[in-house]
Amino acid sequence: MKKFKVTFYPDNRKIEVDQGENLLRAALAAEVHVNASCGGDGTCGKCRVVVDKGSVRAKGYAKLSSEEKKEGYVLACLCQIESDLEVRVPPESRLGRVPKERERAKVCGHIFPADATERLRLVRLDPPAKKIFLVLPPPTLDDSASDTQRISRGLRAAGFREERIEFDPPVLKYLANLVREAAFKVTATVLTDDTGLKVTKTEKGDTSGNHYAVAVDLGTTTVVARLVDLKNKETLSEKSDYNGQVSCGEDVISRIVFASKEGGLDKLQHLVIQTINRLLKGLIDETGADAKNISAVFVAGNTIMLHLLLGLSPKYIREEPYIPTVSVFRWIEARDLGIDLPDSAYVDPLPCVASYLGADVVAGIAATGVSRKKELALYIDIGTNGEIVLGGEDWLISCSCSAGPAFEGGGVKHGMRATAGAIEQVRIDAETCEPMILTIEGKKPVGICGSGLIDTLAELFLSRIIDRRGKFDLTLSTPRVRKGENGAEYVLVWGQESKTKKDIVLTEVDIDNLLRAKAAVFAGIDILLDSVAVSLKDIEEIYIAGAFGKYLEVEKAIAIGLLPDLPCEKFIFIGNGSLGGAHMVAVSREGKDEVKRVARRMTYLDLSMNPKFMDGYVSALFLPHTNAELFPSVMAQIANSK
Amino acid sequence: MKKFKVTFYPDNRKIEVDQGENLLRAALAAEVHVNASCGGDGTCGKCRVVVDKGSVRAKGYAKLSSEEKKEGYVLACLCQIESDLEVRVPPESRLGRVPKERERAKVCGHIFPADATERLRLVRLDPPAKKIFLVLPPPTLDDSASDTQRISRGLRAAGFREERIEFDPPVLKYLANLVREAAFKVTATVLTDDTGLKVTKTEKGDTSGNHYAVAVDLGTTTVVARLVDLKNKETLSEKSDYNGQVSCGEDVISRIVFASKEGGLDKLQHLVIQTINRLLKGLIDETGADAKNISAVFVAGNTIMLHLLLGLSPKYIREEPYIPTVSVFRWIEARDLGIDLPDSAYVDPLPCVASYLGADVVAGIAATGVSRKKELALYIDIGTNGEIVLGGEDWLISCSCSAGPAFEGGGVKHGMRATAGAIEQVRIDAETCEPMILTIEGKKPVGICGSGLIDTLAELFLSRIIDRRGKFDLTLSTPRVRKGENGAEYVLVWGQESKTKKDIVLTEVDIDNLLRAKAAVFAGIDILLDSVAVSLKDIEEIYIAGAFGKYLEVEKAIAIGLLPDLPCEKFIFIGNGSLGGAHMVAVSREGKDEVKRVARRMTYLDLSMNPKFMDGYVSALFLPHTNAELFPSVMAQIANSK
Repeated sequence: MKKFKVTFYPDNRKIEVDQGENLLRAALAAEVHVNASCGGDGTCGKCRVVVDKGSVRAKGYAKLSSEEKKEGYVLACLCQIESDLEVRVPPESRLGRVPKERERAKVCGHIFPADATERLRLVRLDPPAKKIFLVLPPPTLDDSASDTQRISRGLRAAGFREERIEFDPPVLKYLANLVREAAFKVTATVLTDDTGLKVTKTEKGDTSGNHYAVAVDLGTTTVVARLVDLKNKETLSEKSDYNGQVSCGEDVISRIVFASKEGGLDKLQHLVIQTINRLLKGLIDETGADAKNISAVFVAGNTIMLHLLLGLSPKYIREEPYIPTVSVFRWIEARDLGIDLPDSAYVDPLPCVASYLGADVVAGIAATGVSRKKELALYIDIGTNGEIVLGGEDWLISCSCSAGPAFEGGGVKHGMRATAGAIEQVRIDAETCEPMILTIEGKKPVGICGSGLIDTLAELFLSRIIDRRGKFDLTLSTPRVRKGENGAEYVLVWGQESKTKKDIVLTEVDIDNLLRAKAAVFAGIDILLDSVAVSLKDIEEIYIAGAFGKYLEVEKAIAIGLLPDLPCEKFIFIGNGSLGGAHMVAVSREGKDEVKRVARRMTYLDLSMNPKFMDGYVSALFLPHTNAELFPSVMAQIANSK
Repeated sequence: MKKFKVTFYPDNRKIEVDQGENLLRAALAAEVHVNASCGGDGTCGKCRVVVDKGSVRAKGYAKLSSEEKKEGYVLACLCQIESDLEVRVPPESRLGRVPKERERAKVCGHIFPADATERLRLVRLDPPAKKIFLVLPPPTLDDSASDTQRISRGLRAAGFREERIEFDPPVLKYLANLVREAAFKVTATVLTDDTGLKVTKTEKGDTSGNHYAVAVDLGTTTVVARLVDLKNKETLSEKSDYNGQVSCGEDVISRIVFASKEGGLDKLQHLVIQTINRLLKGLIDETGADAKNISAVFVAGNTIMLHLLLGLSPKYIREEPYIPTVSVFRWIEARDLGIDLPDSAYVDPLPCVASYLGADVVAGIAATGVSRKKELALYIDIGTNGEIVLGGEDWLISCSCSAGPAFEGGGVKHGMRATAGAIEQVRIDAETCEPMILTIEGKKPVGICGSGLIDTLAELFLSRIIDRRGKFDLTLSTPRVRKGENGAEYVLVWGQESKTKKDIVLTEVDIDNLLRAKAAVFAGIDILLDSVAVSLKDIEEIYIAGAFGKYLEVEKAIAIGLLPDLPCEKFIFIGNGSLGGAHMVAVSREGKDEVKRVARRMTYLDLSMNPKFMDGYVSALFLPHTNAELFPSVMAQIANSK
């Protein structure tokens, strides 16, 4: 992909971007403030800039006069960059502000695309569920093997070495007619596991080109399903939705409590199956894929979610010593769970390590290749729970900390999932307290997703609108900081510019929840390092997984003390690692083996009874941390901005 | 068991018998003719003998005067032998006949008890379905394996080496509560196969002492089920009944035709499942065994019967090149077939070789140990089909010949299964044409079972009541030979002495059917020997399997040309070999492995297109055979009796 240089005046800031990048996003990445309050919808008309040199492709010119257009004015949010550019930000777009010549941290560029799951690209296409086209020699008196023996023989000739080849009973029912009508040219759908093959379907002729799997990340808050083409590992479509169980409790503990009520477990299972069925329908409707060509659903999720999916009581997961019924699963018939797929479809829940260290993390670790690298890596999955893994090819140690759903938008007044209209990037001008926001798909703002919350919290802190305890400075002369219904709050978007017509705010209560969430994660990192006597500087790669949307800004996450203060080039944002891992397993037996290997090798450290963890947690409830020495780059920024 | 010598006068014939043997049966075995027409019921009063020395236990003295009793008269059929005896058969009980001093074949003694299945006694008790009592260490924070991992670990500690241990989904459902209520002392029911273990049930505490399997011989005509105690390999009860499918056709071909009709296949499956369910109920009712302790049902049967059991179309089994859908099966859930057992029970159909060489024969071969012996053996299973196997530990070759159901009582006017009241042994006095009959359990005669038919046919032939073509000599001056509704016939039992109050006869039509059946079997033996260039004298053991009842007299079977004319000590009658094999598999993994090995190694010779077979068949339609030189001992007997 072509790269272009963009220089913003009068700040004289330069940035290199991909062809087609949004001009407003480029400005944000270059740390150039441009007012923008509609999220990129082109409706607020505030992000007016002048292109002095080079060309952009403008999607529209809303609110610009024909004279302004002649003068080179564009709305940054509606422009795609098509060459090297020189761009001037006029004073009205900056609210008259001239930035201080301060030494800000260098532009990190670590705005990562999601799903940089290295292993998924590297693994050989070799799905655990396969369609194999077989051209079999018709039987004769001298070669009178049974139909199943003939197919088994064909499968062995196709390279399957498994001793055990079994046939699902419904396959047998019409097999004799089917193979003869097809003149012994048939496609067998086979599921593999570590000890054998199961033939789940037979079809006439060669249907091997039409074969799909579904990868599911079964999150406590959000369920994401991806339709994967088994010809080429590609994603055909991806859909996400809230887990229907949210109505029964926001976190895993409240779900466990709900499950213990009369009928509760059945209801929870029913709700999550409903969510999955809705997503499947969406995938099928969008792609026109035939459901009968979906053979397998690979589900990553935490241990509690997988128990509820299978209708297994999670009761003892909550009681010391926290034991799940099962942690390593086998193929389960989709119909037995109530999933709307043909009878021949199976579900493969990925393996878990412990009650609070689930298949979501295992999948992510396998997908990143951490477990196959010499380098010491830290893996942080920030979901409703925060899970942290430290290690490499020789060992893996993990822990889990109850972060709460704040970063997924739960427990935050205007929090939301990373879908269209979610505010995903935020800058706040320290002098004017005015925000610059970008939403997913440039839609009118609806709420704030994980990355937007991190940005907002960091910017409020760096702009000194909140203090280290997360409390607002109510002496500031801006209408954006005010007393709301639930105490002090900051207005990110005024009602007239939001989709909901209501102000979008971040409250002190929201900030408290975010602080607790980040403190739990940071304390977890701390204790894991401590347990194996490794220091932060020994870590060579830090993988961040979580449903933050497409952009997670590492510096902002460091600024709030969620991530440790390390050089930003060490950070790799992989987005939904759980889904990436499920996708990898769906297309590769090698990937499936790796997931199993990771689950088997990972040591789990239980923090629930660990007094050091509680100490670390309390210390981390400040911005960025009680011990400021842990965050030298953040403290330097604050010092510079004084 | 004590043995006693019995000498019969005036013939001066001696025989050694077990303590408690029936006196009439001893006379028959000693070739002493005593009139007997009620089958051993004590009602005809004809088998009056005088005990001159020794003691008998008499069950009654019906029709004997007190004076006769004082003189030592007893009814032989009502007496058990309790010491060495001297017995006098008075003239009136012999109809005045003094036997000729002819050289009859020596008393063979080959009246074999059924189920002399050597391997069943030899195999180590090690059932494929096991209950294992596990005392597991309760979990702790340091040992936080999941419940299934804990059980798996326990199973491995108990000696299971299988890599794959899987849990049936319903087991998982309540597992967490169950193991805790049981303080981690639980009994796991596991099914093994060649590549792994499946846990099908868990129970609190130690229930391993109560565990049963069912062995089933699924015959075309008769279904036999045996409840086996898995503590000790013992039979707790055995029940048999006609296969409910008989109403849809007597032989496998007519069943296949029926299956091809609209709804026919479903009906056939339903009927046989009904039969099995009825037998299971009988076994449970009789023994008081709890159905929930029945984990597995092992079914031997021919290939067509196993297809119908599973609801698989047998259509192509009938069309050249005669291919079954499946010949090697796997565990199938009993409930999926409609079998009235708990959800945790499974069915294991034994493996077949080819469309017309089924698991019934494979099971029998494995049960006899033929496949593990150096000696060359011939195995003959005379059911609705006749199956013949030749070989030993190095090779096995087999064929099948459509014998028809005559020896199971089908296609014979008064034929019946070997149940109470069936005439199972017959002698006919050559001079008077009067019969001496014994029925199963000494009940009033109802009909004639397989061994009785063989005896009757042989005796009619040896007494020259029929000729070598099976046609009656209507010139004989006896009311027993007469023209009946369907041509000439012999009256075995007069109506006043039968249970049905009707005459029990054997007709010329019946004899034709018996001749066809025996000719098919003999031609099969002939062609099998020919195919591997082995002659009869090379055969060291001949195993006879079939539902003949408890007594099959080899000399009679030789006399009619059903079995080859070899020394009778080479013959071993194993009764229901199919059931014996299923029983062996039920109690022994070694037995199961052997059955699989036999199925894999056996070569099948298709006779349907073999012109030599048709020639051999036609030659064998005579008594004993067109080529009399093949039966020297039979010809000698006839010569002597002239």
